Amino acid sequence: MIPLRIDYTMSSNTHRFTLTLSCPDRIGIVSAVSTFLAEHRGWIIEATHHADEVEKRFFMRHEIVAESLPFGIGGFRERFAHIAKEFAMDWKISDNSVKKRVVILVSKLEHCLYDLLARWKAGELDIEIPCVISNHETWRSFVEWHGIPFHCVPVTPDNKAQAYDEVQRLFEDAHADTMVLARYMQVLSPKLCADYPGRIINIHHSFLPSFVGAKPYHQAYSRGVKLTGATCHYVTEELDQGPIIEQDVIRVSHSDRPDDLVRLGRDIEKTVLARGLRYHIEDRVLIHGNKTIVLR
Amino acid sequence: MIPLRIDYTMSSNTHRFTLTLSCPDRIGIVSAVSTFLAEHRGWIIEATHHADEVEKRFFMRHEIVAESLPFGIGGFRERFAHIAKEFAMDWKISDNSVKKRVVILVSKLEHCLYDLLARWKAGELDIEIPCVISNHETWRSFVEWHGIPFHCVPVTPDNKAQAYDEVQRLFEDAHADTMVLARYMQVLSPKLCADYPGRIINIHHSFLPSFVGAKPYHQAYSRGVKLTGATCHYVTEELDQGPIIEQDVIRVSHSDRPDDLVRLGRDIEKTVLARGLRYHIEDRVLIHGNKTIVLR
Amino acid sequence: MIPLRIDYTMSSNTHRFTLTLSCPDRIGIVSAVSTFLAEHRGWIIEATHHADEVEKRFFMRHEIVAESLPFGIGGFRERFAHIAKEFAMDWKISDNSVKKRVVILVSKLEHCLYDLLARWKAGELDIEIPCVISNHETWRSFVEWHGIPFHCVPVTPDNKAQAYDEVQRLFEDAHADTMVLARYMQVLSPKLCADYPGRIINIHHSFLPSFVGAKPYHQAYSRGVKLTGATCHYVTEELDQGPIIEQDVIRVSHSDRPDDLVRLGRDIEKTVLARGLRYHIEDRVLIHGNKTIVLR
Amino acid sequence: MIPLRIDYTMSSNTHRFTLTLSCPDRIGIVSAVSTFLAEHRGWIIEATHHADEVEKRFFMRHEIVAESLPFGIGGFRERFAHIAKEFAMDWKISDNSVKKRVVILVSKLEHCLYDLLARWKAGELDIEIPCVISNHETWRSFVEWHGIPFHCVPVTPDNKAQAYDEVQRLFEDAHADTMVLARYMQVLSPKLCADYPGRIINIHHSFLPSFVGAKPYHQAYSRGVKLTGATCHYVTEELDQGPIIEQDVIRVSHSDRPDDLVRLGRDIEKTVLARGLRYHIEDRVLIHGNKTIVLR
Repeated sequence: MIPLRIDYTMSSNTHRFTLTLSCPDRIGIVSAVSTFLAEHRGWIIEATHHADEVEKRFFMRHEIVAESLPFGIGGFRERFAHIAKEFAMDWKISDNSVKKRVVILVSKLEHCLYDLLARWKAGELDIEIPCVISNHETWRSFVEWHGIPFHCVPVTPDNKAQAYDEVQRLFEDAHADTMVLARYMQVLSPKLCADYPGRIINIHHSFLPSFVGAKPYHQAYSRGVKLTGATCHYVTEELDQGPIIEQDVIRVSHSDRPDDLVRLGRDIEKTVLARGLRYHIEDRVLIHGNKTIVLR
Repeated sequence: MIPLRIDYTMSSNTHRFTLTLSCPDRIGIVSAVSTFLAEHRGWIIEATHHADEVEKRFFMRHEIVAESLPFGIGGFRERFAHIAKEFAMDWKISDNSVKKRVVILVSKLEHCLYDLLARWKAGELDIEIPCVISNHETWRSFVEWHGIPFHCVPVTPDNKAQAYDEVQRLFEDAHADTMVLARYMQVLSPKLCADYPGRIINIHHSFLPSFVGAKPYHQAYSRGVKLTGATCHYVTEELDQGPIIEQDVIRVSHSDRPDDLVRLGRDIEKTVLARGLRYHIEDRVLIHGNKTIVLR
Repeated sequence: MIPLRIDYTMSSNTHRFTLTLSCPDRIGIVSAVSTFLAEHRGWIIEATHHADEVEKRFFMRHEIVAESLPFGIGGFRERFAHIAKEFAMDWKISDNSVKKRVVILVSKLEHCLYDLLARWKAGELDIEIPCVISNHETWRSFVEWHGIPFHCVPVTPDNKAQAYDEVQRLFEDAHADTMVLARYMQVLSPKLCADYPGRIINIHHSFLPSFVGAKPYHQAYSRGVKLTGATCHYVTEELDQGPIIEQDVIRVSHSDRPDDLVRLGRDIEKTVLARGLRYHIEDRVLIHGNKTIVLR
Repeated sequence: MIPLRIDYTMSSNTHRFTLTLSCPDRIGIVSAVSTFLAEHRGWIIEATHHADEVEKRFFMRHEIVAESLPFGIGGFRERFAHIAKEFAMDWKISDNSVKKRVVILVSKLEHCLYDLLARWKAGELDIEIPCVISNHETWRSFVEWHGIPFHCVPVTPDNKAQAYDEVQRLFEDAHADTMVLARYMQVLSPKLCADYPGRIINIHHSFLPSFVGAKPYHQAYSRGVKLTGATCHYVTEELDQGPIIEQDVIRVSHSDRPDDLVRLGRDIEKTVLARGLRYHIEDRVLIHGNKTIVLR
């Protein structure tokens, strides 16, 4: 161990590696990882852990200044492998200079699309958007104004299988990491859900598990709730049942009609989706069973 | 109409009448009521309406300075009756100098009890508490320190019917208006629910309709939600399905165990129950079907 | 008074008049107005009042179905004038079929611009945007993609007077009602502020009155606050001191650097500005002294 | 390093040591501490860090299962000293089986007192309350009902110095760690503030830095803010300027009079004080300059 003072000026652009892992909880995990890093003079920007006491599982995330290490990401993987093996870790390391590739799926409602593109344009969401896919032509020129390819894949009751094959082909051709359903009003095929576990993110317009399924704002109106919400979650084969990444609510009252709930809910949908996606692309979300650990 | 400037100094102690009503919506309701009040020089402190456009029903609440009127509450009832009849109003008028009588039911968990007594002691809840009823002796001396009678009515699987008869007898003997279940961990008898519609208030420790029934915090933990909540509602025969008066939520995370959710939820339970009860005793809550109109 | 049942199907597109007024508080105001409306069979959609007990002033807002009345807005003005005079009302009536004309001013930061245009495009903000004015060329093609004229009026230390004359000329030529400073990073001239009282809306990136002036997020960071906020207010000659329309906050922590505060704050700025602007264009905001009454 | 699987069943009663430290940031801190713990088979329950990139200072908090270590707290202090020295740490270790001793100061307003005693009674605040001190007799019997000694120390313009000497004597005699000003409406003497840095906690009834000083709710009413708040902070000699521990806000409107703000604010005061005190007694709050790092 060579304690040393190094002066890094941090910014959101600092070149960094993000190490995430989970493993059976036991003594010595933090020590092993942090000693490995210290021995190679790795400068830790951020470190967070979580121990699930019921499941006896340990979760960890480290952000490390890339240039503080004497090797690249390949060298890291090689040298870290024996520690990972010793502790039976499920792990990965990513490089923030390689931007995540995020494909956005949208239907006719544009508020989440506008919001995501605004954040991307402002550099707030540090991603590549290789393309936007929609079942309608509505937003083609808007998307193309941003310099992003737009693909229209109509979905009808008859062509579902082919349509989702086409979506999958476009996703694969784009070498994408993540698919975001930005109020994409279609239920994906079971095959798509199964092929990309933990990689498809949906925004559902209710505070799950309330109001699963169609027309949640109308369900909320009928029940007379005093808050309405939105839920960002990973898509699984079971509708609206996947691991929850983020949620939020907004106050409503008896005087709000279903279309007021729709309007008020949009603000929550946008921010909840943006926060959830941000956690995801920053490798802050670890999935365990049907729950998430969000290491912030 | 005799327009006139009258100088009332308002305070929370101002003697006032509260008129609440609902009727089929049509032209002329506000005019009829406000002209009636103006003709008698009634000084309106607060007036709120709501028109349900689907059900075509109109809801209204007025607070009037009692001494601005040339008659008492009996005279008001007499003179207002023909307007009420003309518009087929469901209506009532109450006098804030006659405090609502609220019986509190509690089990072993005391946070809502402490909170309600603190608010009552501070004059924030302008009610009489004729007695507290519990299925345990735990909080007798605390309640009695406040000068409030305490009745212990144990509830066992075998004596439910008698126990709830006894609760009902105590409630009737107390000439009480409202029963508050302040984390009273028992399901009331159908008879009690049916005998006092819109008069029994419960605090449920989840954001309904999520997590109906027992152990909602454990249900919330299992589902991995990112917010937990509480719901104040009127008790009906169907468990946790009555009209919702008020709700709120608090942020939680993967690191919160069920007992953390319990602790965090307590703060929301207390404030939601207190707000809901306040709306109720101020005659701000009108029930329509299984929903509430809260006129604030 | 001719009570009558009329069946209007309400929607956000219903043609309606909005009457707003304030006057010295006295008995008979509501009666006079509602009787006037009932006599002409005016169908009230929404009615809200506020009585300021300290200032003894009464504030009122009515939304009325336009076609329920036997006259147009001119006829309303004529017939209502004697009531307005009798009660010394400060009043106006507007017609929602005549959209408010809102000029947006923006600098280089685009998040509020994107947000406003998205809401306008979705029909959520029912306004005309005759033009966008900026001191930079940055967002010309984005604005023009939306079919909205874009004017660049550079502002330098030397040309301020001429620049603001030009802004005023563009605003006048656009026959605009309202000017929105959507993170327009310039202090307007006193003349502009004085010429359009209650018509220029700013979004300030702090929870006023905390952190008046420049770099509020850095001020917030230095003070170590645990929440950061935004304030939508009318512009007056005194910087950041105008009547507040709407505010909100978001939670931050010691780990948020100034640029995190900037990022987190953007979400609050957008929603607070959009809510404030919505209240304004719906004639819900009445100004009294340096405060607002927001009738919702 | 002896990696080992040990099965501790965690609960809020688990006997634990809490290590907190800060030191100049450099490579190897986490490694040194975690390796020290692993070598002694210390089981980490919770570990959190923060690196202040501007000040180049590192902050850390560990909760360790006491019985997992082969030595007691004295042994820990001895063995850890050389690491602390090497890294120039400012550090301390505490034992949760030795409860913090918290003296509560109160005036006539009781809502925070009720709230703190309720939490203490429920076991939510794991503290000893050796005594309550007040400048009034008002709450003597309520406090004594809880089995807690009550001291009345009247404060008049003439006896301030003696009164605060008496408060200090009572505090010292109680061997107390922390003094909580639970709406104690007096400004402490500079000597008291200076003698207990980071040990006196106040609840201020505004969202600081807004509305410093007297009658903040009236100041808030005058400014027409749309949210009101509360701030829990450490007391320093400069009034309302100490390091902020926790804040929150609640929505208000034009219709809320100053006494409504007072009432609404009470709910925020209670929860903000309780959260702040909880962070403090769990050794989660590290002070750096005039700011806090709250390690949760």
